Amino acid sequence: MKENPKFVYFFAANEAEGKSEMKDLLGGKGANLAEMCNIGIPVPPGLTISTEVCNYFLKNDNVFPEGLTEEVAAALERIEKLMDKKFGDPINPLLLSVRSGSRYSMPGMMDTVLNLGLNDQITEGLGKLSNNPRFAWDSYRRFVQMYGDVVMGLRPVDHDDIDPFEEIIERLKVQRGVEMDTDLTTEDLKLLVKDFKRAIKTRTGLSFPENPMDQLWGAIEAVFRSWNNERAVKYRRLNFISDQWGTAVNVQGMVYGNMGNDSATGVAFTRDPSTGENQFYGEYLVNAQGEDVVAGIRTPQPINKAGRKNKDDVTFESLMPDIYTQLLQIRETLEEHYRDMQDIEFTIERNKLWMLQTRTGKRTAAAALRIAVEMAESGAISREEAIMRVQPNQLEQILHPNFDPKAEITVIAKGLPASPGASSGRVVFNAKDAEEWASKGEKVILVRVETSPEDIGGMNAAKGILTARGGMTSHAAVVARGMGKCCVAGCNDISVIYSAKQFRAHDVIVKEGDWISLNGSTGEVILGQVPTVEPEITGNFSKLMSWADMVKRLEIRTNADTPKDAQQAREFGAKGIGLCRTEHMFFEHNRIEAVREMIMSEDYIGRQAALTKILPMQIEDFIAIFEAMDGLPVTIRTLDPPLHEFLPNREELLKDILDMKIGLKEAPNLQRIDELLKQIKTKEALLEKVEALFEANPMLGTRGCRLGIIYPELTVMQAKAIFEAACACKRKGITARPEIMIPLVSTSPELEHQKAIVQRVAKEVMDKHVVEIEYSIGTMIELPRAALNARAIAESADFFSFGTNDLTQTTLGLSRDDSDKFLPMYLEQQIFVSNPFEKLDQNGVGKLVDFAVREGRKTKKDLKIGICGEHGGEPSSVEFFHMIGLDYVSCSPFRVPVARLAAAQAALKNKKSSDTSLIMEGTKDIVGTHA
Amino acid sequence: MKENPKFVYFFAANEAEGKSEMKDLLGGKGANLAEMCNIGIPVPPGLTISTEVCNYFLKNDNVFPEGLTEEVAAALERIEKLMDKKFGDPINPLLLSVRSGSRYSMPGMMDTVLNLGLNDQITEGLGKLSNNPRFAWDSYRRFVQMYGDVVMGLRPVDHDDIDPFEEIIERLKVQRGVEMDTDLTTEDLKLLVKDFKRAIKTRTGLSFPENPMDQLWGAIEAVFRSWNNERAVKYRRLNFISDQWGTAVNVQGMVYGNMGNDSATGVAFTRDPSTGENQFYGEYLVNAQGEDVVAGIRTPQPINKAGRKNKDDVTFESLMPDIYTQLLQIRETLEEHYRDMQDIEFTIERNKLWMLQTRTGKRTAAAALRIAVEMAESGAISREEAIMRVQPNQLEQILHPNFDPKAEITVIAKGLPASPGASSGRVVFNAKDAEEWASKGEKVILVRVETSPEDIGGMNAAKGILTARGGMTSHAAVVARGMGKCCVAGCNDISVIYSAKQFRAHDVIVKEGDWISLNGSTGEVILGQVPTVEPEITGNFSKLMSWADMVKRLEIRTNADTPKDAQQAREFGAKGIGLCRTEHMFFEHNRIEAVREMIMSEDYIGRQAALTKILPMQIEDFIAIFEAMDGLPVTIRTLDPPLHEFLPNREELLKDILDMKIGLKEAPNLQRIDELLKQIKTKEALLEKVEALFEANPMLGTRGCRLGIIYPELTVMQAKAIFEAACACKRKGITARPEIMIPLVSTSPELEHQKAIVQRVAKEVMDKHVVEIEYSIGTMIELPRAALNARAIAESADFFSFGTNDLTQTTLGLSRDDSDKFLPMYLEQQIFVSNPFEKLDQNGVGKLVDFAVREGRKTKKDLKIGICGEHGGEPSSVEFFHMIGLDYVSCSPFRVPVARLAAAQAALKNKKSSDTSLIMEGTKDIVGTHA
Repeated sequence: MKENPKFVYFFAANEAEGKSEMKDLLGGKGANLAEMCNIGIPVPPGLTISTEVCNYFLKNDNVFPEGLTEEVAAALERIEKLMDKKFGDPINPLLLSVRSGSRYSMPGMMDTVLNLGLNDQITEGLGKLSNNPRFAWDSYRRFVQMYGDVVMGLRPVDHDDIDPFEEIIERLKVQRGVEMDTDLTTEDLKLLVKDFKRAIKTRTGLSFPENPMDQLWGAIEAVFRSWNNERAVKYRRLNFISDQWGTAVNVQGMVYGNMGNDSATGVAFTRDPSTGENQFYGEYLVNAQGEDVVAGIRTPQPINKAGRKNKDDVTFESLMPDIYTQLLQIRETLEEHYRDMQDIEFTIERNKLWMLQTRTGKRTAAAALRIAVEMAESGAISREEAIMRVQPNQLEQILHPNFDPKAEITVIAKGLPASPGASSGRVVFNAKDAEEWASKGEKVILVRVETSPEDIGGMNAAKGILTARGGMTSHAAVVARGMGKCCVAGCNDISVIYSAKQFRAHDVIVKEGDWISLNGSTGEVILGQVPTVEPEITGNFSKLMSWADMVKRLEIRTNADTPKDAQQAREFGAKGIGLCRTEHMFFEHNRIEAVREMIMSEDYIGRQAALTKILPMQIEDFIAIFEAMDGLPVTIRTLDPPLHEFLPNREELLKDILDMKIGLKEAPNLQRIDELLKQIKTKEALLEKVEALFEANPMLGTRGCRLGIIYPELTVMQAKAIFEAACACKRKGITARPEIMIPLVSTSPELEHQKAIVQRVAKEVMDKHVVEIEYSIGTMIELPRAALNARAIAESADFFSFGTNDLTQTTLGLSRDDSDKFLPMYLEQQIFVSNPFEKLDQNGVGKLVDFAVREGRKTKKDLKIGICGEHGGEPSSVEFFHMIGLDYVSCSPFRVPVARLAAAQAALKNKKSSDTSLIMEGTKDIVGTHA
Repeated sequence: MKENPKFVYFFAANEAEGKSEMKDLLGGKGANLAEMCNIGIPVPPGLTISTEVCNYFLKNDNVFPEGLTEEVAAALERIEKLMDKKFGDPINPLLLSVRSGSRYSMPGMMDTVLNLGLNDQITEGLGKLSNNPRFAWDSYRRFVQMYGDVVMGLRPVDHDDIDPFEEIIERLKVQRGVEMDTDLTTEDLKLLVKDFKRAIKTRTGLSFPENPMDQLWGAIEAVFRSWNNERAVKYRRLNFISDQWGTAVNVQGMVYGNMGNDSATGVAFTRDPSTGENQFYGEYLVNAQGEDVVAGIRTPQPINKAGRKNKDDVTFESLMPDIYTQLLQIRETLEEHYRDMQDIEFTIERNKLWMLQTRTGKRTAAAALRIAVEMAESGAISREEAIMRVQPNQLEQILHPNFDPKAEITVIAKGLPASPGASSGRVVFNAKDAEEWASKGEKVILVRVETSPEDIGGMNAAKGILTARGGMTSHAAVVARGMGKCCVAGCNDISVIYSAKQFRAHDVIVKEGDWISLNGSTGEVILGQVPTVEPEITGNFSKLMSWADMVKRLEIRTNADTPKDAQQAREFGAKGIGLCRTEHMFFEHNRIEAVREMIMSEDYIGRQAALTKILPMQIEDFIAIFEAMDGLPVTIRTLDPPLHEFLPNREELLKDILDMKIGLKEAPNLQRIDELLKQIKTKEALLEKVEALFEANPMLGTRGCRLGIIYPELTVMQAKAIFEAACACKRKGITARPEIMIPLVSTSPELEHQKAIVQRVAKEVMDKHVVEIEYSIGTMIELPRAALNARAIAESADFFSFGTNDLTQTTLGLSRDDSDKFLPMYLEQQIFVSNPFEKLDQNGVGKLVDFAVREGRKTKKDLKIGICGEHGGEPSSVEFFHMIGLDYVSCSPFRVPVARLAAAQAALKNKKSSDTSLIMEGTKDIVGTHA
């Protein structure tokens, strides 16, 4: 810690010590509260204890740094003065809220304590002061419950267990014969407080602290400790937030939305977070505390007409028109100041408006796009800022299919369209099941009465989320939108019965494992699976993409094996094919027989005969792809996978043979026997070949250029097909630009061997047709050895393309097919920060890629270099590829827009950074990157 | 080519233009002929055309450089003068030999033409001059045959085909009713010459050149071309000789050992090439040409008493005592001059001794050792030279078992003890079969009437070689000794019948596939397999080893998993264990059950229970190993292989279950049914686990430290066993020095995770026993990512040990288990120069190793670094490890002496070289190294 550090930052309207740039130190909430004060917005005064104190506290066995107590006391005095109340004063008590606030918002992940500063005596005083003893005792009841849960640890760990306080309330309600909490009397509330305190004493052996200052320090400690609670850790992992950042604590004077019908509380977005429409959007509850809205316990009302779902909704606009006008004014001030859509919390205490929070609002992909483009067009932000405003990963969501509107569907219920998208899946009723089923490859829809932060893992695993309760800003809705996951929330039509693992929608019963479909844009819950159709791409999308294209340096290509994919990718803006896997063509029904014939051949002549059958088909394939990519480069990889992949499964063969042998006994006549014997012989030959081709580690076996070296006739056939197709295209006026790529090269002699074949065939075919085709020959760099010898290999290569999938497998010694056995545990324990098959392992694989780029360009200054692994469409990886000077990235068609945007963002982020130093010798060796 | 190059180097006694240092330019033979001339030894005058001419010729479409003709003519004139004969002169003709000679001896690999310069007319003249027309015509006949074979290409490519000339001879012999070539008359020989020429014309369309000068240039061309013939290429590959070196051509005046009974020819070694005894050793034939001795067609006689095998052998010593004395003198001169054992060829033409060749003699390992040590002790060479004289790889041969002398054996035949050693194998009758059978894992003995250069591949593949004809210097004997392969030659007791694939030894018939055993030290051929016993290590061995230890810098450790291996290695000079694989202990009969129980456990408690059973066994294992290695470091690797390796085979399980289900139907009573059902259930559970643990690429799967991270209790158990054992040893007065090695680490968090466990357990155990054990914790660097991040990983590691086996697999993307499918083809086509699993791939894997050493030592200057892959016992790899500064190499016990010697040689070779530069950025990317 620095010398003479400052631990505490005071804030109140027009006199804050912090500002919005101090998020690292004050957390997002604290910095924004200070900033709101700076721009004159009415915020209850308060103080922020910095994240540095959190880190000190957690590293020093939960001890606070010296001097903190004094700073807190001084700031508290300022709050008391401004609010004209006194903390712990039974006559005119100041109550406090204590909330966490980290650098990035982690909604609901950490602990909060409200109404702090009450004890029996003070509550009596508050009752008198407010002239509302019931409010005072209800606040006290809530405070004891919250404090007991959060600070004293009574909240159940497993969230299916019952909260001991809720149990006490339920018991009392039964005794009193009432249904709602609000039906309990002041005396009942007093009884509850007593019972709560007794429960705390029984369970923890500790007494509830009656001294307000003890309460305050207990709460501050609890918030700091909550940084490391299980759900917070899990959330950080899913969101790539560093464990090192810590949380700040915000202590703020309490204001009350539950002081009567002249009080209210609400949350709002300055624009529609679902569509992005420039329309003030929010929900409120009269006579309630803020947590009631977010928790989704009472269904809130819309703040204005535009948000009305039902005729009998009462809008805030109509109920408190003056305050609504004031709120609209603040909305404008905030958007103007923050230059982005804000997510705000407000409370009206006896007709006075207080702003409790503002932060950049989470939004759907469509909303992000629309807001960014509209703000740029209105001049609020620059186009470059607009580019930075949209998360590339979100884009894919817009491009994905929706339900076919012509499909006949059975809508069984309707809820709130909480997060757009369309998905079908099998119903599960808790987060654990969702994770388990999904890990087995099942598509699941998670159905809950309401979700809570403990459900994060299950929500992530599910294809969609359906809740019976909660509004558009409920936990389920906010988190689902952030994840780009379809969600229908607050669906009152359904009743969930956890014990029976089913839900009822009117008279339909849906059981665990049944298929349902959710339309997150309409709120419809549909029985069964629904077919989908392609999305239409909106004007905002193409606008943003064109801006992105203007600033990006990387070229974006696509991985496509079919004309359809190629066409799709071209529509999405791909400037060529970076990887066309010829083997995918081999699998098609009419050619697998010929391929097998080739594999079964004992000699060159047999193989040649089979290849002659395959040749015309491959020519057709390439013509179609060249047509789709007319004028653009098409990188074609020669045959890569081990040959046994083309043969039938060994087990199935064994079973077939056994069945036929049994059939032999039951054969009706000699002819049938002959027939069967012949079939058995064929199958047995196939089996023998399958066994001969068996490999212990096919990933490291006879594949890639090794095939073309053992069977040069294979490369000959493929080269012939490529050049015959290119010549045929030329005659049709179509420009084919083949780039032939030799896979799995580890030394230059391998590349030279294959290159010589391709060059010879190219010349033969072009001479035959008297046509000149522009082409190049390069190699995949997908083995560490190739990267290490890039300088030598570049001598023979016109281009490099990094196969980062295989390079990841070999560099880390990690089979992608098998990694699910331990990778989840590695991620859980943060041994790997992210999955290296999703985000490029920059400190490992990245070192090789960077090295190979530098070495390759030592041989050929202008060597064209790209990447065609899955990482080509992953934003943090795209940024890395931009940084190290690649020419292009290639990714799946739907990722092309993602890559375009990511490339633009990379260019903008790294505008000023000059040449990077060689990262090979770096001392950081973590797998994965934080946000 | 240089300006004004010199192409031709003349030589004759006391007037040679070359010398022995010019081997690169003149080839070994040419340089030695010149050198012999320089020291006054009688050598027929001649000329050498340099290897530069060969390279020029081969690179320029078989065209000679300008000026060569003139130089050859000038030198020829000098030969004519000195020999007082004229090339092409029918009255007094000079005849020439034309021989190849490359930098390294490639015996019999390239072409030779003798008796060159004859045509009908000159032959008549020679007959008159020699007063021996039969000799003249026999020489002519041989010349035409050789020239037809070699220069005009009539030699059959497939060596089972019949030589057209041999066919003609056979036909004539049948016509004449004679058996031996020598029974043919001069007229017959004339007829043969005519028929030979006709055969040449028929087959090639070309006439035999009658002009001697045409003959000469034809022969020179043929020798150059023969550099690239198939067997020469194959030999070079097997012996790591560069294709770039080329051959020289030696043209030398012919002298004749076949001019009558005052003429003879012989080959000799200045010391016994088999035992190394300081005893002149050789063979000769009266009235014969040199090729007759080498080819093994007539069985030659010993030159002196010491070499006598049979009572009726006639020694050269007794037959030509004066010339023998002269020869002894030359022997002394040569050894004194060359300071090494020489392999010489000589010819006596009418009582005049001519030396035709001297070269460093090939020898067995035992001979190499004895000669080196004796020469050093006599002061002829230094101890350092002695160290350099023994090929490390040969040493292993001395250490290998011999036949158990107490075994009852059935000797069915006895031949010459041509190359020592003892081996058993199944009989095959040709090289192709030997290669094929060996590739399937069969041990084979290659049985031939005699071998020829075409058999090299098969000889290499065989465990031993048996020939019916040929002496101690026959092709089979020389090559086998070079290969360190057991060989019994010239075994007249057997008759080989190729067509029936069998041989007869007296009345025993041995068929293809039958087992026989060869004792290469006694010449015995034994029926069946014979048990073997450990060799005794001679005084020379330990002397040389002690000299080696004085100069080497690398420490040599061993890979040993058992006390027996550890003990053996310690006797061979290992200074510790570099790799103790704990999993090998898991496989032992009494513990595999407990290991399976652990794997089958569904939870921690079950695994813990099973591990508790394994713990005491592992403690015993480690105690025994610590005892064997008392005071020396023992590197123990924690569990490495994927768990499924400990489970039964899937197929077998399936079969067992099926059998039991069938058994169910036939069960005699209910009790049996219950029994079977229980067994089936167990097996099915096992099967389920086997299937759950199935991995597509186990090499890249859940193994190494990944196991210890998923199941920390495994590491706990192993650490406990190690420290309990160490403490138990300490009580017995034995010093255990455990070094715990964590395998398959790719990041420092993995190592830290495992290290924390080991440290905690170590402390617990040591505290419990109140004992202090010195230990360290390090890691294997066996993944490219680990090498790339060595600097970070070194923070947590006390030592590194390179696992070059796995590092080779991942760096090259090459599964060792599967590489046999294409690696042979890669080697054949020289895409890889050597097998990277045998010799370290210095340009690929080596770059990573070098980089990791440098990076690791940036973090810890004195980081202890070793290597424990198979390469630790391979000399060229050991040299590499010396160069890059490793502290030790670890290898299998029998390779320990090899590594000690290789380490000493590396230290001597690189005495002067200072720090090497980083090889990572090298531009050479070949897999493999030449000699």
